[in-house]
Amino acid sequence: MNTTPSIKQTRVLIVGAGPAGLGVSLALKKAGVTEQIVLDAREVGAAFRSWTRGMALLTPSFFSNSFGLTDLNSIDPDTSPADFLNTQHPDGPSYANYLEAIVQHFQLPVQTGVKVTSVTKTPSNFTVETSQGLITAEFIVWAAGQFFHPRDRDFPGSQHALHNSAVKDWQELEGDSFTIIGGYESGVDAALNLINHGKKVRLISRGEPWASDHPDPSRSLSPRTLDRLREILKTPRKAESIEFVKNTTIKSIESSSGFWTLRDQDDIPIATTTRPILANGFHSGLDLVSDLFDYDKNSLPVFTEEADESSITRGLFYSGPSLVHRNALFCFIYKFRARFGVIAAEIARRLDLPNIEENLQSYAKAGFMNTDLDCCTNCECAIETNTSDTPEPASFT
Amino acid sequence: MNTTPSIKQTRVLIVGAGPAGLGVSLALKKAGVTEQIVLDAREVGAAFRSWTRGMALLTPSFFSNSFGLTDLNSIDPDTSPADFLNTQHPDGPSYANYLEAIVQHFQLPVQTGVKVTSVTKTPSNFTVETSQGLITAEFIVWAAGQFFHPRDRDFPGSQHALHNSAVKDWQELEGDSFTIIGGYESGVDAALNLINHGKKVRLISRGEPWASDHPDPSRSLSPRTLDRLREILKTPRKAESIEFVKNTTIKSIESSSGFWTLRDQDDIPIATTTRPILANGFHSGLDLVSDLFDYDKNSLPVFTEEADESSITRGLFYSGPSLVHRNALFCFIYKFRARFGVIAAEIARRLDLPNIEENLQSYAKAGFMNTDLDCCTNCECAIETNTSDTPEPASFT
Repeated sequence: MNTTPSIKQTRVLIVGAGPAGLGVSLALKKAGVTEQIVLDAREVGAAFRSWTRGMALLTPSFFSNSFGLTDLNSIDPDTSPADFLNTQHPDGPSYANYLEAIVQHFQLPVQTGVKVTSVTKTPSNFTVETSQGLITAEFIVWAAGQFFHPRDRDFPGSQHALHNSAVKDWQELEGDSFTIIGGYESGVDAALNLINHGKKVRLISRGEPWASDHPDPSRSLSPRTLDRLREILKTPRKAESIEFVKNTTIKSIESSSGFWTLRDQDDIPIATTTRPILANGFHSGLDLVSDLFDYDKNSLPVFTEEADESSITRGLFYSGPSLVHRNALFCFIYKFRARFGVIAAEIARRLDLPNIEENLQSYAKAGFMNTDLDCCTNCECAIETNTSDTPEPASFT
Repeated sequence: MNTTPSIKQTRVLIVGAGPAGLGVSLALKKAGVTEQIVLDAREVGAAFRSWTRGMALLTPSFFSNSFGLTDLNSIDPDTSPADFLNTQHPDGPSYANYLEAIVQHFQLPVQTGVKVTSVTKTPSNFTVETSQGLITAEFIVWAAGQFFHPRDRDFPGSQHALHNSAVKDWQELEGDSFTIIGGYESGVDAALNLINHGKKVRLISRGEPWASDHPDPSRSLSPRTLDRLREILKTPRKAESIEFVKNTTIKSIESSSGFWTLRDQDDIPIATTTRPILANGFHSGLDLVSDLFDYDKNSLPVFTEEADESSITRGLFYSGPSLVHRNALFCFIYKFRARFGVIAAEIARRLDLPNIEENLQSYAKAGFMNTDLDCCTNCECAIETNTSDTPEPASFT
């Protein structure tokens, strides 16, 4: 192969040093893949570092690893955020510290501050343009950009709203009364924080997620959020501070001097004197590599069931919360990590490495190498079958 | 066999309709053992029904069953308290409701209000005296009495103290300032509740559990408790209300009119004008069947590693939080449930039932049939190895 000095070469390039990228990096290392590079445009766990103050993981961390029940927020079978951080619901910066500790401890080949600007498939490999020059790689694991793009341009006037992810600290917002668009996790989190700071809140949702009872945590409010909501409702002063507006889809926002007018599906106006807060999640696109994937009739990207590879670009794998199989979302850490070992094993196999199954035994045992997709997508609860209509999915933040 | 009409016969008698007994009953049913009876002196989940108001399970419930990560408080692979109760930390009565729902749904053969008064091993089986007559059984699974006997007679004058388990509601205690003996889970729980009700608290512990960092949750405060403690310490008024007294072993209590004097290992007196609160857990004895077990040099009961059977009484199995293997305690639900399938499989095997492994496949897969004791007892955390001296174990309540 003809290379110039400025072109770096690697076997596997992982883009994104969050849980999805680092998790695959660790699994690859375990599988014997030594030639790998992890790039991140910012820093390790960058998305977590920018979380609003007080925002925490929805899934509880608990050190039950030794019983085959790995901490739900771990990215490998042998570590535990609960044990490392001594907390059950790590906030963003704490979780980033856990990821940073993993990079240090396992000496993962992470390079931060390197922005990928294009990915091109060539007949023999991938050519990747970065802010620090070209890299060629045989395999790419895309694990980036999930929480870069707030859905803040979704309807006319939505740019007038303040996206919840842009808030550094709820305490800093001026005003006494707020209108929040979006009643899932991030909307309820915003509401709870504002109420705890003595504010009044109107919470508007397309559905009625606070009343949903779907067994899949990706499709209903998490137990922790329901617990926090109940706690608020126990205090009369706080309970009076929250107004739930259900089955209301905001279609537009107009901004005039000092007030905002929201209009719902029936054109009914809702006025507010503080900037409306938009808590509708992030675009879960595949960003720079979106053209290298195929999409199904619901516009969901298609991943191979064998190893979460692009169905149209061989060698390009995906790891992270946008993973979908059989219409089921893998949008929690404990869900998408189930494929870390699968991706690593497939890459190791193509590199003809020995003893792959043996090296990844702990991954298989702890559920980090799940090939039985049926088991992840068909959830049945023996003693509760009463489910309401499926609402829009909640994201893992 | 010669039976009189008043003698009931069964293959397996399970004593105790709490999580340990019901869990084995379900596993036995799954393994094909239809002739079984579950007895309880009181009601289903009775110990949980008597928990102090607001006391909750320490282990977080979360419905991640479909990813092979069964809710930590489930007693079988297919149910989830988080999903059933919509809460992360069920309180006692809620958890009892979950157990009750399981009994109903799976039609478990539970008989409540039947007190066992003696268990005798005969050459061919067991003879069990109960408040409703004799029962003979081929196998006994002892799963009772773990939380009946508070350690309230442990040192001179300890009867003057109020055991935390006797408190129905912390709000009802008269007085402004309290002294709590015991700094593990139940002591800290008492302290947090009292402080939240505006009281002052002195928390006395033999060690310094609030500073312990042992990775095994049985040997340090749980993440949830540490989170609650930190929350209290954030509010100056509340932080000032708690005094931590470490490395202090209370050796005696004297009661005079209107005040109590506690003395520590150096005979230093500590006076209090409210009745001291004793939060030192329960006697974890095997109760009526204690003579049917052997004990090791540390006075811990000996269980066979094959199936948690008494090493001296064939056919007598144990299920529950007093389980010990290789000095490791199985004192959380997610720990002792790892043996439900093991006990059930062993009994089914002795009854010559077919397809046992196949019938219990879901148990094996979900970690409810763990035969690898090493994996449960040697917990290593890759990124944190710094452990302090092992304190006394905390109980699962």
